[in-house]
Amino acid sequence: MSHISLHCVQCGASFPANMLILQCDRCQSPLDVFYEVITSQSPPRDLSARQMPIPMHDESAGVTLGEGDTPVVLLPKVGQLLGSERIYGKLEFLNPTGSFKDRGTATLISVALEHGVKEIVEDSSGNAGASIAAYSARAGIKAHIFAPADAPSSKIRQIKVYGGEAHLIAGPREAATEAAVDFYQKNNLLYASHNLSPYFVEGTKAFAYEVLKQFGDGLPDHIVMPVGNGSLFIGAWKGFQELKAGGHIKDIPTLHCVQAQAVRPIVDAFEGLEWSIKNVQQTVAGGISVGNPPRLQQVVSIIHATGGQAVAVSESEILRWHGLLSAQEGIYAEPTSAAAFAGVESLIKQGHIKRDEVTLVPITGFGLKDTAEY
Amino acid sequence: MSHISLHCVQCGASFPANMLILQCDRCQSPLDVFYEVITSQSPPRDLSARQMPIPMHDESAGVTLGEGDTPVVLLPKVGQLLGSERIYGKLEFLNPTGSFKDRGTATLISVALEHGVKEIVEDSSGNAGASIAAYSARAGIKAHIFAPADAPSSKIRQIKVYGGEAHLIAGPREAATEAAVDFYQKNNLLYASHNLSPYFVEGTKAFAYEVLKQFGDGLPDHIVMPVGNGSLFIGAWKGFQELKAGGHIKDIPTLHCVQAQAVRPIVDAFEGLEWSIKNVQQTVAGGISVGNPPRLQQVVSIIHATGGQAVAVSESEILRWHGLLSAQEGIYAEPTSAAAFAGVESLIKQGHIKRDEVTLVPITGFGLKDTAEY
Repeated sequence: MSHISLHCVQCGASFPANMLILQCDRCQSPLDVFYEVITSQSPPRDLSARQMPIPMHDESAGVTLGEGDTPVVLLPKVGQLLGSERIYGKLEFLNPTGSFKDRGTATLISVALEHGVKEIVEDSSGNAGASIAAYSARAGIKAHIFAPADAPSSKIRQIKVYGGEAHLIAGPREAATEAAVDFYQKNNLLYASHNLSPYFVEGTKAFAYEVLKQFGDGLPDHIVMPVGNGSLFIGAWKGFQELKAGGHIKDIPTLHCVQAQAVRPIVDAFEGLEWSIKNVQQTVAGGISVGNPPRLQQVVSIIHATGGQAVAVSESEILRWHGLLSAQEGIYAEPTSAAAFAGVESLIKQGHIKRDEVTLVPITGFGLKDTAEY
Repeated sequence: MSHISLHCVQCGASFPANMLILQCDRCQSPLDVFYEVITSQSPPRDLSARQMPIPMHDESAGVTLGEGDTPVVLLPKVGQLLGSERIYGKLEFLNPTGSFKDRGTATLISVALEHGVKEIVEDSSGNAGASIAAYSARAGIKAHIFAPADAPSSKIRQIKVYGGEAHLIAGPREAATEAAVDFYQKNNLLYASHNLSPYFVEGTKAFAYEVLKQFGDGLPDHIVMPVGNGSLFIGAWKGFQELKAGGHIKDIPTLHCVQAQAVRPIVDAFEGLEWSIKNVQQTVAGGISVGNPPRLQQVVSIIHATGGQAVAVSESEILRWHGLLSAQEGIYAEPTSAAAFAGVESLIKQGHIKRDEVTLVPITGFGLKDTAEY
């Protein structure tokens, strides 16, 4: 019998670890991976990510491209601009396909391989599509990636380079999702949605284990992330919770969520405002342009649980920080990643981050991936 | 008195550690960094790259963006294609600007900062220019990068993103070098040539320390590299030599050099053939398109010293391996990096690499950096 099951994040219903199950059949909420034996396990001695619980039965059969173990660097000039000396970046763009998504994908595709899957369907307008295409190539799985026809050509190119079959769908982002759902149902294939799959979120939790390894006892006070679907946000939270349950850390850092003003469902929910997908506007931060994130409630709960905030930032602030990061610190990020720094600025101004506290920002995607001119 | 000096690689003449000295004034050969006390130092206990000798007096003042510690992954499908099960890639493109150059640049710019340099001049058609622009931004140094006017626009863009001043020079690659030399002399600036500077080569030697850490006692039998100027090739050799001198390894892996047939000065020198820069033809492997490498003799000596080979590969082989790497292994490399795999194929066919031996290939640059269509 498997020690792995899936639990509904809302009502707690339990399901077997089956990749075809993507939502709770009672309340339609997303699912998370759950380990039956985790509380009775002796705590890992070496706190490396290699020893965290993962949702596979034969761990040696995992698909890897060397994801994770990304560097943390102090950002002295960003700190100077913000009047806070201890702002760090974790260079998540130094993952094998150029974004943090590889953490989630490695786990998702490893589980798919363990389950004997040969062909998968995914919808993405960018980094997740490239990541899933790459790991599928590595695993010998055929990947169908549904993307909006107007997605950045450099991202579509990257999907195709890895041998992914790109299905370009006219219309808004949601049309690609609908076409993907239609396609997987008609062809009886696995829908490996990075937004829904509990395995994708589960893969991102190594982020927390690495932060502990890199910061030791002086964990960051604040972690500020750009949030679209929130897979890294939720994964980090899960990792810190495991570490706390195992007695390895006392307190979990405060987790803050940053969105673009143009697409702010989580910020609005946090503030108790009504959000409609019709409010979506164009943003340079394509990685967090998610009008209807299925795990919204889960993200909001985590913000509340850690005492964090959700802030929305303007297009001009995002572009300003995009330029500052590269010209001042030598870090070429995607605009999406720069949004988090605009968020830090706002959180410091509002007093939510004090100037002597330690703040960590994951820099989620490589600027090389997005060749649009701003 | 400094424990660091510069030694001529040809005649052994010694010079003070002065960044303005780029060549031996007796025989015009390039220089290498030399540590006066290295032989009397006790061997480092932890063999991490952090503890290797570096050419700085205050090591804590170094400029870093988290370069190095790149992952090593087994390439099972490449191995299957070549009939050799133990072929590994070291993902050097997962360095902060997307290429291995960051190793050399981090050391070069750290030393420049220690020497109080405020403004530097470099000539490059690609990865080195972006790398130097990024680390200069981080260090607060103004960088002038001279590049051919017809260099890939994505690479020029990356230089500018980091705030580097791009000087675009019409004519062949050498025209950019001449313009850079003219400019640094007229303006009395430091010429931070990655081809000539002994500090750049010195920075790449961490590669060898990492390989030891990652492979342990079972060091690769062969390391096969794409070689233009040979800075990684020479740096790896220097690192392995230090490790051997310290008693940490018994044998140095066999180092093989791969060039494009279109630009093959080192291969021709190795084979005793006459090479002229007039023979240079167009190649998709832009990173190794160096018609007149100043450290050619040094590279040839290392090949001989380790019992390696120098092989030239065709454009179609490079492109074939470029496609195989991404579609089979999920690794999106620059065509330059793919050339090394065409080289491995040739070395196996010729019997220089036996099928049961362990081969390591550094995958030097990210495919995202080169958006040309092939």
